[in-house]
Amino acid sequence: MSNEAPVFSAEIDASIQAVREDVARLHAELVRNGLVVWTGGNVSGRVPGADLFVIKPSGVSYDDLAPENMILCDLDGAVIAGTAGSERAPSSDTAAHAYVYRHMPTVGGVVHTHSTFAVAWAARGEEIPCVITAMADEFGGPIPVGPFAIIGDDSIGRGIVQTLSGHRSRAVLMQNHGPFTIGVDAKDAVKAAVMVEDVARTVHYAREAGPLIPIPQEAIDSLFHRYQNVYGQNSDARR
Amino acid sequence: MSNEAPVFSAEIDASIQAVREDVARLHAELVRNGLVVWTGGNVSGRVPGADLFVIKPSGVSYDDLAPENMILCDLDGAVIAGTAGSERAPSSDTAAHAYVYRHMPTVGGVVHTHSTFAVAWAARGEEIPCVITAMADEFGGPIPVGPFAIIGDDSIGRGIVQTLSGHRSRAVLMQNHGPFTIGVDAKDAVKAAVMVEDVARTVHYAREAGPLIPIPQEAIDSLFHRYQNVYGQNSDARR
Amino acid sequence: MSNEAPVFSAEIDASIQAVREDVARLHAELVRNGLVVWTGGNVSGRVPGADLFVIKPSGVSYDDLAPENMILCDLDGAVIAGTAGSERAPSSDTAAHAYVYRHMPTVGGVVHTHSTFAVAWAARGEEIPCVITAMADEFGGPIPVGPFAIIGDDSIGRGIVQTLSGHRSRAVLMQNHGPFTIGVDAKDAVKAAVMVEDVARTVHYAREAGPLIPIPQEAIDSLFHRYQNVYGQNSDARR
Amino acid sequence: MSNEAPVFSAEIDASIQAVREDVARLHAELVRNGLVVWTGGNVSGRVPGADLFVIKPSGVSYDDLAPENMILCDLDGAVIAGTAGSERAPSSDTAAHAYVYRHMPTVGGVVHTHSTFAVAWAARGEEIPCVITAMADEFGGPIPVGPFAIIGDDSIGRGIVQTLSGHRSRAVLMQNHGPFTIGVDAKDAVKAAVMVEDVARTVHYAREAGPLIPIPQEAIDSLFHRYQNVYGQNSDARR
Repeated sequence: MSNEAPVFSAEIDASIQAVREDVARLHAELVRNGLVVWTGGNVSGRVPGADLFVIKPSGVSYDDLAPENMILCDLDGAVIAGTAGSERAPSSDTAAHAYVYRHMPTVGGVVHTHSTFAVAWAARGEEIPCVITAMADEFGGPIPVGPFAIIGDDSIGRGIVQTLSGHRSRAVLMQNHGPFTIGVDAKDAVKAAVMVEDVARTVHYAREAGPLIPIPQEAIDSLFHRYQNVYGQNSDARR
Repeated sequence: MSNEAPVFSAEIDASIQAVREDVARLHAELVRNGLVVWTGGNVSGRVPGADLFVIKPSGVSYDDLAPENMILCDLDGAVIAGTAGSERAPSSDTAAHAYVYRHMPTVGGVVHTHSTFAVAWAARGEEIPCVITAMADEFGGPIPVGPFAIIGDDSIGRGIVQTLSGHRSRAVLMQNHGPFTIGVDAKDAVKAAVMVEDVARTVHYAREAGPLIPIPQEAIDSLFHRYQNVYGQNSDARR
Repeated sequence: MSNEAPVFSAEIDASIQAVREDVARLHAELVRNGLVVWTGGNVSGRVPGADLFVIKPSGVSYDDLAPENMILCDLDGAVIAGTAGSERAPSSDTAAHAYVYRHMPTVGGVVHTHSTFAVAWAARGEEIPCVITAMADEFGGPIPVGPFAIIGDDSIGRGIVQTLSGHRSRAVLMQNHGPFTIGVDAKDAVKAAVMVEDVARTVHYAREAGPLIPIPQEAIDSLFHRYQNVYGQNSDARR
Repeated sequence: MSNEAPVFSAEIDASIQAVREDVARLHAELVRNGLVVWTGGNVSGRVPGADLFVIKPSGVSYDDLAPENMILCDLDGAVIAGTAGSERAPSSDTAAHAYVYRHMPTVGGVVHTHSTFAVAWAARGEEIPCVITAMADEFGGPIPVGPFAIIGDDSIGRGIVQTLSGHRSRAVLMQNHGPFTIGVDAKDAVKAAVMVEDVARTVHYAREAGPLIPIPQEAIDSLFHRYQNVYGQNSDARR
């Protein structure tokens, strides 16, 4: 492997820099929303127009996450030698992120956390039922559970892709492990990580105290379609 | 619809500006009190002396909520063209706020959140029993549940008005959705949103661990009347 | 009632000023420890060497709590006219604080909050069993429950004094209402308010998940006596 | 006991100063991660190359924890007279820390807190089962419970050492008391204190809502070995 930095076009260079800044900044949202402790959790973003993505280094404090410390990888998860941050090891979940980017071409961002309530559902291998309208808006139904899989081969990435392909939900609870979320870009995937913990917590407390009232399927459909198309400041609602 | 700004009297102009500042600032209270995540939640305030109210734009980050970004609407929920912020879409809950202002003339503020414990009661369609004195003070009895209703027509606004008209409570838990609160002004409605989550959480934990002791009705009445009339620095206690 | 400020000795004046500063500052500890929302909660401190105490004004935001806004009262709870802050109404719990100072001469500070878990035990009228060593250290046994009593006469103050007189605990859970704590000074009472919520929360979660292991009475006694006499930087351990 | 400061080599002096800075700074992590209230909790760090460790003073506010206030002790827990901070009493848990340093030579840091969920498991005397992969990574299996022991002799230290010697876990839940954690240095022990509360909380919520799915032992083993050897920026993974 050469240690020389590859030469990108000025446009790709600018895209890389923009994604580095997004990914570095978005880690602070994980902290602000109480989704991570210590160095846990990771955000990545695809570089538009290139077979590349940017991800957090492994085991580094949240206080040290600057754009130039983010790590540029190809879609096999290999670090691009000679680029900023490439002297460090990327997140230990890099292979799972890479698998998702390779197999889901419309995904522009991936997030993984061990947020408390999402992990609690995952430890029971139980999907979160869709009983609140905010969940219908954001996920269009229940949050599904993915298979038990451990680091070492492609099984985590494969589990994410198999569970979320063709599913409305942008979040999957990997059994005994925790949530992975996807989005059109890194910010959208972070939003999904924030919202999946919010609904995991709310539905946990709701169900503890008695039976839940289901939402009729046609209301779930209606809320999901409106939210995806109308909510926010433009039709590209989730950005 | 003309794009020209309407001409208001200097007095109304000053009122609009004051409400813009209140509404923008009060959104920070939602964050500070942990009632909202991401761009969720909305506060509105009626403009005294005019058939107008000010509300938050849709899907905009809490860090970007300045007075000039708030949106001025008439009581049908239509944006007043040509005024500050009118290039943006108002909160997707604007129709519900407008319905309340049209049908409850003494209401000067409306707040909606998806705060965790209030939504948990709403997902079971269960009213919160009045078992703590702070709840008797603030709400004068149980927090009622409103009907299941989804965005698209007047059904949310109608559900709020039907539930709260003639009720002591300034908060309603809309089934499967979450709390809406009203008040004499935006600040009073925000206080009700803070307090409804506080009592929803406290009564949730209380009841989890065993039977609750009811408060006699005459004590609830006495606490409610004292608090509405005596508490605080003047008789206009809840402002 | 004269509106003229009384004349105190220079020594008492200095004590009043010191207690004003302590009481104002200590309210921030209630916020920092998550014990209060909005304008709830109140701290008072006795003025050493005088039949006076200092308490928070009623219904005022935590952001506005400066020493000169604190209110000086006599031991009947009457505001001392003409002194700083006396144009405002004192906390609506002033009568209860005054009753405690009149009847418990060694009490130098009183605190009242509606902190979540302490109120949850109070809504069931259930004392908190002493199953963790930190609770044995700080309170020497269970946290007792006081009678149901509402504002309007001396019944709250009487309930606090009857429950805590001769009891090791510096905290009482007033039924359906919430915790009142006492201490050698305002800071010590605030510490008790922080610790009672901490143990109320911990024992709540502990008991939810299965049977608790009791601590032998002789171990409780030993921990309590050591902590009161040895812990901290001097024998006056709880200051 | 002489009051004269001992003379250390320049190298040891530099080590002492570095450990003072680490220990003082790391207390802020206990606060930031919500593990302590008031003056509770303590961190200590061994001085490399000397039979000495640095620990927090007893009962001092977290706002006052500067390096020069930390206290230097020998491995019997005696304060080294004449050194910075030696005019104060060390943490009341100093004897337990000293016992661990004397009997576990590879331990470089010890932390004790009363964090909510870890104490809740301790009050039931129940070990935390290993049902989430983050726990397999960090602790290699369940978090064990240590015996009931109170301050006054070596019984706390002995209980920690007996429970953790030869155990994968760096955390022990002392019955009715709370967690003690160890590490290669003070930072590593603080990380263990953060993670033990995180898993105690997550597994508490998980189990409240239904049966947990166990993780196969060979998967636990695989995760533990990978994490100890590969995770982070070097082989010295937990530093």
